[in-house]
Amino acid sequence: MTTTPSASTRDRILNLVQNSRFQNAVIFVIIINGIVLGLETSARAMELAGPLLLGIDRICLTIFIVEIGLKLYAQRRNFFREGWNVFDFLVVAISLVPSQGGLAVLRSLRVLRVMRMISALPNMRRVIAAMLHALPGVSSVAGIVGIIFYVGAVISTKLFSAAFPEWFGSIGGSLYTLFQIMTLESWSMGIVRPVMEVYPQAWMFFVPFIIVTTYTVINLVVGIIVGAMEEKAIEEGTKEDPAKVWLKLESRLEAVDAKLAELLKEREGRSDGRR
Amino acid sequence: MTTTPSASTRDRILNLVQNSRFQNAVIFVIIINGIVLGLETSARAMELAGPLLLGIDRICLTIFIVEIGLKLYAQRRNFFREGWNVFDFLVVAISLVPSQGGLAVLRSLRVLRVMRMISALPNMRRVIAAMLHALPGVSSVAGIVGIIFYVGAVISTKLFSAAFPEWFGSIGGSLYTLFQIMTLESWSMGIVRPVMEVYPQAWMFFVPFIIVTTYTVINLVVGIIVGAMEEKAIEEGTKEDPAKVWLKLESRLEAVDAKLAELLKEREGRSDGRR
Amino acid sequence: MTTTPSASTRDRILNLVQNSRFQNAVIFVIIINGIVLGLETSARAMELAGPLLLGIDRICLTIFIVEIGLKLYAQRRNFFREGWNVFDFLVVAISLVPSQGGLAVLRSLRVLRVMRMISALPNMRRVIAAMLHALPGVSSVAGIVGIIFYVGAVISTKLFSAAFPEWFGSIGGSLYTLFQIMTLESWSMGIVRPVMEVYPQAWMFFVPFIIVTTYTVINLVVGIIVGAMEEKAIEEGTKEDPAKVWLKLESRLEAVDAKLAELLKEREGRSDGRR
Amino acid sequence: MTTTPSASTRDRILNLVQNSRFQNAVIFVIIINGIVLGLETSARAMELAGPLLLGIDRICLTIFIVEIGLKLYAQRRNFFREGWNVFDFLVVAISLVPSQGGLAVLRSLRVLRVMRMISALPNMRRVIAAMLHALPGVSSVAGIVGIIFYVGAVISTKLFSAAFPEWFGSIGGSLYTLFQIMTLESWSMGIVRPVMEVYPQAWMFFVPFIIVTTYTVINLVVGIIVGAMEEKAIEEGTKEDPAKVWLKLESRLEAVDAKLAELLKEREGRSDGRR
Repeated sequence: MTTTPSASTRDRILNLVQNSRFQNAVIFVIIINGIVLGLETSARAMELAGPLLLGIDRICLTIFIVEIGLKLYAQRRNFFREGWNVFDFLVVAISLVPSQGGLAVLRSLRVLRVMRMISALPNMRRVIAAMLHALPGVSSVAGIVGIIFYVGAVISTKLFSAAFPEWFGSIGGSLYTLFQIMTLESWSMGIVRPVMEVYPQAWMFFVPFIIVTTYTVINLVVGIIVGAMEEKAIEEGTKEDPAKVWLKLESRLEAVDAKLAELLKEREGRSDGRR
Repeated sequence: MTTTPSASTRDRILNLVQNSRFQNAVIFVIIINGIVLGLETSARAMELAGPLLLGIDRICLTIFIVEIGLKLYAQRRNFFREGWNVFDFLVVAISLVPSQGGLAVLRSLRVLRVMRMISALPNMRRVIAAMLHALPGVSSVAGIVGIIFYVGAVISTKLFSAAFPEWFGSIGGSLYTLFQIMTLESWSMGIVRPVMEVYPQAWMFFVPFIIVTTYTVINLVVGIIVGAMEEKAIEEGTKEDPAKVWLKLESRLEAVDAKLAELLKEREGRSDGRR
Repeated sequence: MTTTPSASTRDRILNLVQNSRFQNAVIFVIIINGIVLGLETSARAMELAGPLLLGIDRICLTIFIVEIGLKLYAQRRNFFREGWNVFDFLVVAISLVPSQGGLAVLRSLRVLRVMRMISALPNMRRVIAAMLHALPGVSSVAGIVGIIFYVGAVISTKLFSAAFPEWFGSIGGSLYTLFQIMTLESWSMGIVRPVMEVYPQAWMFFVPFIIVTTYTVINLVVGIIVGAMEEKAIEEGTKEDPAKVWLKLESRLEAVDAKLAELLKEREGRSDGRR
Repeated sequence: MTTTPSASTRDRILNLVQNSRFQNAVIFVIIINGIVLGLETSARAMELAGPLLLGIDRICLTIFIVEIGLKLYAQRRNFFREGWNVFDFLVVAISLVPSQGGLAVLRSLRVLRVMRMISALPNMRRVIAAMLHALPGVSSVAGIVGIIFYVGAVISTKLFSAAFPEWFGSIGGSLYTLFQIMTLESWSMGIVRPVMEVYPQAWMFFVPFIIVTTYTVINLVVGIIVGAMEEKAIEEGTKEDPAKVWLKLESRLEAVDAKLAELLKEREGRSDGRR
C-alpha cells in the first residue's frame, strides 16, 4: 500500500470513524434525533418550538450525511460489503428523497433513522445477526406456510367472496383475513360464525386451517429452539470435543498397549531362551 | 429383469420423469397453474382473458395427467408405495371429478394442485416428513385432548343448550365453541360472561377447561421440542458415541491391565525363584 | 400366604380383572357408554330411542360397578393405593349420587366416566403421569402467579370497583377479569380502554400486569421444557453415565499406573543391587 | 469481634430473626394480613367488622415494622445489601406514607405487603432470582423491541393521528395501541380493519409490525430456554466435567506411557549390553 497523501487521509479518516468517541457521539446524535422526531409528532411541541426542532433535525441529518460520507470516502467499495453500512445508508438516504405529493409517507419514514441505534450498538447487532441467522433454517417452513396461505386464499375467495366481499373479496383480502385467523384474532366470533350462518359447513375449512397453520408455526418455533441450542453447543465446543478427545485417548492407549505387548513378547522370548 | 422392449421403454420413461430438467419443468407448470388459478378468482381478469386463463388451466391439468400417467406406467405398483405420489395423484384426480350441482366445492379444491409445490421440492418434503414424524409422539396427548373435548362438549351441551342453543345446541356446536374457547378467542367477553349472566357458576367449568387444555397443549409442544432435539442428537451421533467409546476405552484398558498383571506375576515368580 | 378358598377366589378374580381381554371389554363398554351419553344430549335421539339409550347407560353403569367391586374385593386396601383406581371409583360413584333438585349438575357429570378411557389405556396414563410429574416443578411459579393475582385483584377491586362493578366488583370478579386479561382476551378493547376513559392512568396497572404474568408463564413453560429434557436424559442414562464411566476408567488407569510403578521400583532396586 | 453488651444484643436479635419459628410467625402474619386486606375490599365485611379488620391490619403492620426494625438493628448496613430486605422495607414503608388527596392509590398499594410471601419463602425467592437472572440475557432483545416500538409509534402517530386520534393521537397512545396489537388483541377487527377503511394500505405497516415483533418475542423466549438449559447444565457440572476429566485421564495416560517407555529403554539398554 503506497502512502500517498490521499491514502493517508483515508487512513486517518478510517481511524476517526472507528474511534469509540466518534461512535459514541453518533449514538448521542441518534438519540437526540429520535427525541426530536418524537416531539415533532406533538402539535403543542411544534407550536412552542417548531423551528428549533426542525433545525435540530436538519443538523442531525447533516451530521449523519457527513458521517456516512466520511465512511464512504475511507472505505470506498468495502463500505457496501457490510450489511449494516447499507442499512445506515438507506435509512439516511430515505430522508433525502423529496416528499411532496403522494410520497408524504416517506417523510414519516425518516424516523427509521432511530433504527441506526441497532446498527450502532454491537450488542444489538449480534442479536439481529442471530435472528437473521435463524431465518434460512425456517425458510422451508415459511414456504410451506406461504403455499398453505395461497391455496387457502384461492379456495376461500372462490367459496365466500360472493357472500362476504369485505373479508374474502379478492386473493389479497382473503390473505389478510387468513392471516388474522392464523393469529386467532376474532377468528370465530368475528369471521367464522358469521360465515357459518350462510355456509354451515365453513368450519370444515377454517378449523383445519387453524390447526395446520398453528402446528406449522409451532414446528417453526421448535426449529428455532433446536437451531439455537445447536449453535450454543458448537460455540462452546462441547460438540466437537468428545470425538477428538476420545481419539486422542484411544491412540495413547494403543501406544501403551503396544509397548506392553513388546515387553511381554521380549520377556517370553527370554524365558523361552532360558528353558 | 428382462430387457423386453416394453421394459426398456419403462426404464427410459423412468429416467425421463426422474430427470431434474423434467422436474423443473413440472415445478414451472405448477407455478403457472397456481397463478392462473389465482387470476381466475378475479372477476376482472376473467372478463379480460377468461378463455385464455381457462385454456392455460386445461393445458396445465393435461400436463399433470400425462406426467402422472408416465410415472404410473414406469413405476407401476411401486408408484402408490410412496405417499407423495398418492398425494399428487389425488390432488390431480380431484380436478377430474365432474363438479356440477352440490359438488361446486370440488371445483374450488382444484387449487390444491398448487400443493404439489411441496411434493416437488425435496426441502419442503423433508420439513413435512419431519412434521408428520412428530405426530405419533403427540398422538397420546391429542387423544387426551380429544377425550377432554368430548366430555366437555357433553357436559356443556347438557348444562347450557337450553339457554344458549346457538353456542351449545348440540355436541357438534359445543365442540366448535370449546375449540374457540381453547384458542382463547373471545372466550370471556364473547361466551363465558354472557353464560355467567344466566349461570353465575359457569366459570367453574370454563376456567378449569382453559387451564387444563392449555396445559395439555403446552405439554404437547414440549413433547415436540424434546422429540426434535432427540432426533437431532441421534442424527449427529452424539448420543450413541459416549457409551460405545467408553466401552472401547475400557476394554483396551482392561487389556493393558491384564498384560501388566502378567508381567508382574511372572516377575514375582522369578524373584521368588531367586530367593 | 395361605391358600384358603377365599384367598384363591381373590387370586382368580385378580387374574380376571388384570386379563387383557377383560380390560379390552371394559374399554369397549366405556366407548359404548360414551356414545350413548353423547346421544342422550340430542332431543331427537331421545325421542326416537330414549328408553333404549337410558337402558344401555344403566347396563354400562352396572358393568362398571361390578368391575370396580371385583377389583375392590380382589385388592382390598391396595385398591385405593393407586391413584387411577381412586379416579375410576370417584367417576363411577358420582353417577350413584341422587341428582334431584339443585344437584342436576351432578347428572351432567356422569359423562366424566368417559375419562376412564384415559385410565384404561396405559399410553394415556403415562402421558398424564408425565404431566402431573411436571407439576411440582412448576408449583413455585404457580404460587407466585397466585400471589400476583391476589394482590392484583385486591388493588383493582379497590381502584375500579366503584366505576366498573361488573368487572371489578369483588375479589372474585377481579380475579376472573385478571385471568381474562392474562389470557389476553379482549384485554384492551374490552376492558382496559373503557377503564382508561375513567382512569386515564389505568394502563400503569394493566400493562405491567400483562408483562409480568406473561413473563412468569413463559418461565413456567421453560421450566417444563427443561424438566422434560432432564427427564429424558436421565431415562436414557446419558446423564449418569459420564461421571460413573470416568470414575471407572480413572480407577482402572490408577491400577495400571500402580502396577507400572511397582515394576519400575523393583527394577531400580535390582539395578541398584547390581551396581 | 468484641462481645460488648450491645454486640451480644445484636447477635441475640440476629439469631431471633433468623430463627425458623420467628420466620414462620411472620409468614402467618403475612397470610392473616393478606386475608384482612382482601376482606376490606368487601363493603359487607367492612359493615360487619370494619373496626376489627382495620385493627388487625394495624397490628400486622406494627409487627412488620418491629420485625424490620429488629433486622435493621441487628444487621445495620448489611441489611440493605440484600435485595429482598430492600423489597420488604419498601413494601412496608409504602403503608406509612400519608395517603390523603391524590395519593389514594398509595392506600391500595398496601396490599403489596402480601408480596412479602415471596420474599419469606426460599422456594419462591429462588424462582424469582432465576427469572431475574434471565433478564440480562434478554435485555438486548428487549432493547430492540423498544426501538421497534418507538419507531412504530412515531410512524403511526404521523400517519394515523389525524383520522384516529383515539388510538394514535400521541406517541404514548400509539405505544399503547401497538402494545395491544403485539398481544394480537382485536388487532384486526378492532384496529387495523377500521384504519384500512381510511388508509387501504395500512396493512403494509401493521402486518410486518406483527410479524417482526412476534418473531422477536419468539427469539426472546428461545433465548430464555437456551439460557435455562445452559444454567441447568452448569449447575449439574455436566458441562465443565468433560474437559477436566479428559485432561485428568490424559495426564494419567501420559504418566503410564512415560513409565513404560522408561521400562522399554532400560531393557533395550540391558539387551544391548548382553549382546
